[in-house]
Amino acid sequence: MSEAYVHGYHSRENERLEDQAGTLVNLLHSDTSYPSGSVILEAGCGVGAQTVTLAQRSPDARFTSIDVSANSVAEAKRRTHAAGLTNVQFQQADIFALPFAPESFDHVFVCFVLEHLSRPVEALAILNRLLRPAGTMTVIEGDHGSTYFHPDSNAAHTAIQCLVELQRLAGGNALIGRQLYPLMVEAGLEAVHVSPRMVYVDSSRPNLVDGFTRKTFTAMIEGVRESAIAAGIADPESFDAGIRDLHRTTEADGVFCYTFFKGVGEKRRRA
Amino acid sequence: MSEAYVHGYHSRENERLEDQAGTLVNLLHSDTSYPSGSVILEAGCGVGAQTVTLAQRSPDARFTSIDVSANSVAEAKRRTHAAGLTNVQFQQADIFALPFAPESFDHVFVCFVLEHLSRPVEALAILNRLLRPAGTMTVIEGDHGSTYFHPDSNAAHTAIQCLVELQRLAGGNALIGRQLYPLMVEAGLEAVHVSPRMVYVDSSRPNLVDGFTRKTFTAMIEGVRESAIAAGIADPESFDAGIRDLHRTTEADGVFCYTFFKGVGEKRRRA
Repeated sequence: MSEAYVHGYHSRENERLEDQAGTLVNLLHSDTSYPSGSVILEAGCGVGAQTVTLAQRSPDARFTSIDVSANSVAEAKRRTHAAGLTNVQFQQADIFALPFAPESFDHVFVCFVLEHLSRPVEALAILNRLLRPAGTMTVIEGDHGSTYFHPDSNAAHTAIQCLVELQRLAGGNALIGRQLYPLMVEAGLEAVHVSPRMVYVDSSRPNLVDGFTRKTFTAMIEGVRESAIAAGIADPESFDAGIRDLHRTTEADGVFCYTFFKGVGEKRRRA
Repeated sequence: MSEAYVHGYHSRENERLEDQAGTLVNLLHSDTSYPSGSVILEAGCGVGAQTVTLAQRSPDARFTSIDVSANSVAEAKRRTHAAGLTNVQFQQADIFALPFAPESFDHVFVCFVLEHLSRPVEALAILNRLLRPAGTMTVIEGDHGSTYFHPDSNAAHTAIQCLVELQRLAGGNALIGRQLYPLMVEAGLEAVHVSPRMVYVDSSRPNLVDGFTRKTFTAMIEGVRESAIAAGIADPESFDAGIRDLHRTTEADGVFCYTFFKGVGEKRRRA
């Protein structure tokens, strides 16, 4: 079950992640760009949804993007080539067994990865060792517990909770966004600054209604329907009622709120 | 019971509201200022926590600030005089029976008021009639359902829910922030734009830890302890455990999140 739902590993999911990346690019990435000549590790690139944006925004930096899944790496490679980018090299690798020397990177970028790991602080500490002194670590995560909406609905919250529970059973944490500050501090990063990136959606923002509430968030919850039923944590009727209530928030009087968190910290400088 | 907990009516509460106003001034008000000579109604000024900021930020505008409570009006008057402000006049009045002619104001400002009303749309529609065509209405409300934190705690959520339930029993709605857009549209306002104002607190922001998490939000929940116990919706042990867990979020590894919503709409222009 552990990978049955984890987003990013199935091609049906790729389109959704691309929609998500498109809708959220400015909110998440507008304040990230790296200087000419700098060397960056993207740890956990998945299918490259963020890689293309990252590499486009820092055309004179050089990226190494890794992912534990060879299939994801292949798809990410295809995308960056299709986008005409030449400043990214890819490698299949596990964050917990990386083939890089200490202090080999100027910056590290980690997006939507920690939520899937049972040892997120250990992962950050490993990545921190790869940074040169005063290099930066940027971490972005969502937090499904930040979700609320109008009209409110217990059924919808229960359906969302199915994903939270599946992710927990798989060793991850779908509520990790709010924890970025203590996790990064515990991993040894300094000058940690976390900023929330709230997605607020009402019907005056039709692109977000469609691109975020409907095609990103609700689609993600719908995507765990079979896994949640198979795991015995949802019955079909209740789950479907929750999905209907999430769609209800996309009507003219509906409102939907979700928050991502972005943390930036610095590798300790030499004494 | 209805007024036993409603913040703003008791002098013990005044200091808390002043702390809150001080901490949140920029987040809530930095984008509100009114042109020289404009005439503004502040509907529901309470003890004047926002009035001083409003009047200071628009020194050449003229404010009329009303509240249903004569005691609150007296306190608000004392504060604005103490701040040396001369551009505010006060009046004790009920939003549902206002002594003003239609189209008498250029702008209307409503902050932390709708949450206490059982007929918020009717109140907004009444206020809308007092606006001149193309005048603006600004509404600010919190939303207690936007609260989440680390470490997470069911006891803390249950304690917060006591305030939500007391406010509901008194005819109000502590989850109203997320509803500003549909409420303002339903009241007939045009070009409604709502923006969330999220308060994110971790230990790198000690002023917010103390000024918001501890002295504003947790103090507000602590303030309903006796009412919640008297109403039979809380037992002392569970409630106190919830308060302890809210205080726990102010430690070095704690995080606290809350969101206010600010809506601005426009009175319909003449055809």
